[in-house]
Amino acid sequence: MRNDEQYMRLAIEIAKAGIGQTSPNPVVGAVVVKDGEIVGFGAHLKAGEPHAEVHAIRMAGEKAKGATVYVTLEPCSHYGKTPPCADLLIETGVQRVVIATTDPNPLVAGKGIEKLKSAGIEVKLGVLKEEADELNRVFFHYIAAKTPFVTLKYASSLDGKIATTTGESKWITSEAAREDVHRYRAVHDAILVGVNTVIADNPSLTVRLPEGGKNPIRIVLDTHLRTPLDANILNDGQAETWIIVGSEASAEKRKLYEKRNVQIIPMSKPHIDIDELLHVLGERRITSLFVEGGSHVHDSFVRAKAVNEIVAYFAPKIIGGKQAPTPIGGIGFAAMADVMELQIRQVETIGPDIKIVAIPK
Amino acid sequence: MRNDEQYMRLAIEIAKAGIGQTSPNPVVGAVVVKDGEIVGFGAHLKAGEPHAEVHAIRMAGEKAKGATVYVTLEPCSHYGKTPPCADLLIETGVQRVVIATTDPNPLVAGKGIEKLKSAGIEVKLGVLKEEADELNRVFFHYIAAKTPFVTLKYASSLDGKIATTTGESKWITSEAAREDVHRYRAVHDAILVGVNTVIADNPSLTVRLPEGGKNPIRIVLDTHLRTPLDANILNDGQAETWIIVGSEASAEKRKLYEKRNVQIIPMSKPHIDIDELLHVLGERRITSLFVEGGSHVHDSFVRAKAVNEIVAYFAPKIIGGKQAPTPIGGIGFAAMADVMELQIRQVETIGPDIKIVAIPK
Repeated sequence: MRNDEQYMRLAIEIAKAGIGQTSPNPVVGAVVVKDGEIVGFGAHLKAGEPHAEVHAIRMAGEKAKGATVYVTLEPCSHYGKTPPCADLLIETGVQRVVIATTDPNPLVAGKGIEKLKSAGIEVKLGVLKEEADELNRVFFHYIAAKTPFVTLKYASSLDGKIATTTGESKWITSEAAREDVHRYRAVHDAILVGVNTVIADNPSLTVRLPEGGKNPIRIVLDTHLRTPLDANILNDGQAETWIIVGSEASAEKRKLYEKRNVQIIPMSKPHIDIDELLHVLGERRITSLFVEGGSHVHDSFVRAKAVNEIVAYFAPKIIGGKQAPTPIGGIGFAAMADVMELQIRQVETIGPDIKIVAIPK
Repeated sequence: MRNDEQYMRLAIEIAKAGIGQTSPNPVVGAVVVKDGEIVGFGAHLKAGEPHAEVHAIRMAGEKAKGATVYVTLEPCSHYGKTPPCADLLIETGVQRVVIATTDPNPLVAGKGIEKLKSAGIEVKLGVLKEEADELNRVFFHYIAAKTPFVTLKYASSLDGKIATTTGESKWITSEAAREDVHRYRAVHDAILVGVNTVIADNPSLTVRLPEGGKNPIRIVLDTHLRTPLDANILNDGQAETWIIVGSEASAEKRKLYEKRNVQIIPMSKPHIDIDELLHVLGERRITSLFVEGGSHVHDSFVRAKAVNEIVAYFAPKIIGGKQAPTPIGGIGFAAMADVMELQIRQVETIGPDIKIVAIPK
């Protein structure tokens, strides 16, 4: 017989099935236990489709009555695209509900728990809260800030170069590291690059994985609308492309792009302000943004304190050169007292390369 | 009862007692086993003092007769500052000698093993050879190349900066990482920096560890003799200081420095050629060199393919800035096909920082 923590760990593992496909909803897992046996489980898999509890209760059938339900996120208490899960649990007659963490969505935020308690159900809160919060850090950030969770990615040599002095950059990291990058792309709502990256590399910015994967929306920061009209991202039809322009970008030029089924999104100022950009993307339901460079764009995000996670790949190579470009270029921080302090979350070997994941302090 | 590999592992651990204090000799450990019991052990601790086998045989006393001796390096066969260890083992009447690796010193190089075999002693070679070779990689390199083993060290932010755009660099890494650097200093014969580092930071380049430690010789690359006469390294009397100059450095100026008990070592050419430098240092019995920057000096060593190991510390910080200096500056490699390829040997967390040790492929 397992304890609450062990059942909750299972619910968290089950929840992970939904990673990257539930946006703008959180990922949630649920396990139903009766007399020491697992009688049902489920996960939320796609916005608009049943919540984790619904799948789990359905699987349990008659046995759900008097059972304990483990759920990674507080059951919802409101009518959204589906009826409230708290009501379902009450109607089913479950005896006890163990919850990892509360739902910060103001439509729920403790109301789900209140509903259960009022109906006489025993509620235990906070089992594996940290892991459950981590699981939905993107969703929680989006709910609280109304802007996307920003992951900044770069790949450099061990001496911090993203290209040689002549601009050569193919390839610094291994195929294994590049595949890992594609896995990140697949779980983000949108991917963002600067126009200089589009001009220099003409990337597709699609997900190319052996197992396939959903392409994120492609976003280009292009103040003066310089994206080449023959760029892959405008013509390959693989995913939506949005071009962010300054308020003074030529209206004539815009027409040329709009013919190509590309969305041009103008900012309110002549330059692109990162805070404004993120609010606009948040309004458009972009909950997660994967920023892939170049180094000038990275500098803008870092200085705007608009980075929630950094994923850095280091290849076992020395490129050298005072003029060779680095992962974070632009202006940077002049004083050591002002630099962005991070906390290392993960250090991992991927093929011959090293991957470091860090979050701002 | 332990097997050959287990006794040899002990001999290797014992050998480590000598790390950093046996130069220009190798580190060696020995264990004497009789009837399944350890009856003696020893390590070589200082050039001119007894070898590992001598200490071990002395400790074993009468019990050494008929025993098995485990030694991490082939016993010497020549008269140096001490008599040949092979002769001692024969005279003692040991039955069996287990050796991890042969001594590449041309004065030994298999002759020690031959001597033992001729005397009817059973010899087993190659037990934990890889670990034993690793232990003496500095000595083996020095014997083969007649130049010091070069370790290049740098500390940068996660985005590969060694200072901000304004040149501020105190401190990028934590005290724990800086203490680790001092440990490296203590086990090297010499430490090397460029004159720009001396001018900018006025470092002491000494070992400052809670437990103390031997100061390495301080070497400055200073083509035109620009080291300030009031620099710490010229006046603190903490360790020897050598200044490497080009062939055209002013003789007048040299006198000013030589008064300060500093050695001025001129190269044969107007500029400092790294290959020539390393041969000169080798002739002067420098077996290990710790190169601590700056980024221009690092570039010279990297492009001369004169690096045997790289120790890189990454602080969890983003400094940013296109103009901020990087660990390897200078000219660098223009083409990806020419960059220095490394192999990662170690990834470790030190306090909040990450340490990566790599060797050229």
